[in-house]
Amino acid sequence: MQHLIERMAKAHPAPESEFGSELGDAYRVTLECSQVCSACADACLAEHAVDPLIHCIRLDLDCADICGATARVLSRQTAPDLGIITMMLEVCARTAQACAEECERHPEHAHCQICAIACNATVDACRKLLDAGRPELHH
Amino acid sequence: MQHLIERMAKAHPAPESEFGSELGDAYRVTLECSQVCSACADACLAEHAVDPLIHCIRLDLDCADICGATARVLSRQTAPDLGIITMMLEVCARTAQACAEECERHPEHAHCQICAIACNATVDACRKLLDAGRPELHH
Amino acid sequence: MQHLIERMAKAHPAPESEFGSELGDAYRVTLECSQVCSACADACLAEHAVDPLIHCIRLDLDCADICGATARVLSRQTAPDLGIITMMLEVCARTAQACAEECERHPEHAHCQICAIACNATVDACRKLLDAGRPELHH
Amino acid sequence: MQHLIERMAKAHPAPESEFGSELGDAYRVTLECSQVCSACADACLAEHAVDPLIHCIRLDLDCADICGATARVLSRQTAPDLGIITMMLEVCARTAQACAEECERHPEHAHCQICAIACNATVDACRKLLDAGRPELHH
Repeated sequence: MQHLIERMAKAHPAPESEFGSELGDAYRVTLECSQVCSACADACLAEHAVDPLIHCIRLDLDCADICGATARVLSRQTAPDLGIITMMLEVCARTAQACAEECERHPEHAHCQICAIACNATVDACRKLLDAGRPELHH
Repeated sequence: MQHLIERMAKAHPAPESEFGSELGDAYRVTLECSQVCSACADACLAEHAVDPLIHCIRLDLDCADICGATARVLSRQTAPDLGIITMMLEVCARTAQACAEECERHPEHAHCQICAIACNATVDACRKLLDAGRPELHH
Repeated sequence: MQHLIERMAKAHPAPESEFGSELGDAYRVTLECSQVCSACADACLAEHAVDPLIHCIRLDLDCADICGATARVLSRQTAPDLGIITMMLEVCARTAQACAEECERHPEHAHCQICAIACNATVDACRKLLDAGRPELHH
Repeated sequence: MQHLIERMAKAHPAPESEFGSELGDAYRVTLECSQVCSACADACLAEHAVDPLIHCIRLDLDCADICGATARVLSRQTAPDLGIITMMLEVCARTAQACAEECERHPEHAHCQICAIACNATVDACRKLLDAGRPELHH
């Protein structure tokens, strides 16, 4: 089951992919990050002391929404608009970085540690895709 | 029912809103745009000649996802990160503008005309919020 | 701007709508409910005492996701599967009812009162669409 | 990266999980299915003959939305409402089954074959979770 989404990318009838293999990485990673952030917000809510985690919950929820939208945009290969993709990768990296930094302030919670790993992986995957892209991927 | 979301914004316990009344406009408009774009993609699929609408469907789906994520981010007033909000408003305006331009190429379809109205309203609402924002809303 | 989504429903090229005007109501109402629930979860997080609101936040987030998915399914008129639509309307009504009941336990918070109104409107709209439906809308 | 979401489930502070290990399977599988369906809709749009795929695209988009909402609901372990979870698993299984059957009608497209695999895995995972559940998971 694990590589289904990569197999899907290769099964696309478009004449040639706009991106290299970094694309497959980026959407798998942003998708997992979306789910992990959603789960971290929920785990924060179940902690005895929720107050110090309010900022973390807010960023978790924003990061879940933005990573989810980024993953959906990346999953489409038909008639892509590289300007839009670039801006989404940038806001996704920016949000994941803020979320990672906030989660790293709560090392006593295992869920925040795991969420920071997922967010940092998203930052890397977005940046790699931005760097690997054809020149016009940079606006 | 129609102003429930504005009433919600005013019912928030945060000491003072980060934004003026443009915020209420922006999230209502981006939310409606998300739904209208999703409906336009579906209406395009039901046309006799789908081929000339492939690019339109792609943009409709991206715009639906990005407007939806923007609306959710805007709906949160707790501990906002203005850098993230600014970047989301910018990519949302950019995507809605591309979608409006594409829809305007298909004036023979009433659904594309309506979708262009919703997208142009989103461009205006995002830009107004960016312009009205406090200095730090601009990154 | 306010009736754009109804105009969109009428602009659809499908030969005849599967539903009466209840459809337009249901998707506008579920869409607004999705956003109001998302905003209520956020307002709950900003309260001084978050603990008594944990259950409310959980239901708000579930209701936001389920209403959002229901709205998207309802927005599509091409090749509908009435069994799926029926089940979505039922789980949407069930979730909105649970969320309304929980919000009504917190009348001291204006945001919970408003959220209960949005959720009860969703229950009504889903049930009206289920009742108004053609026989095969009931599975 | 691959087991981050399972690690997250175990890191949750709730005293004991409501579900066995089937939960981790179900939300990973529904999440991947959501993305694969979204990608299949896009690949269908890029085919030379889109007309025979209209029904498939519709089901792909519904399945993407419903699996996505199911995954988010499953990702939350705080204060779960088992009636809602049961109904979501049922509509998710029903939708994924319809989508798998439609995709299996297009074996000439590799993306439809892959999508059918993802959808059938979702049907299995939802049913396993429904069967494994404590009695009250059945409403």
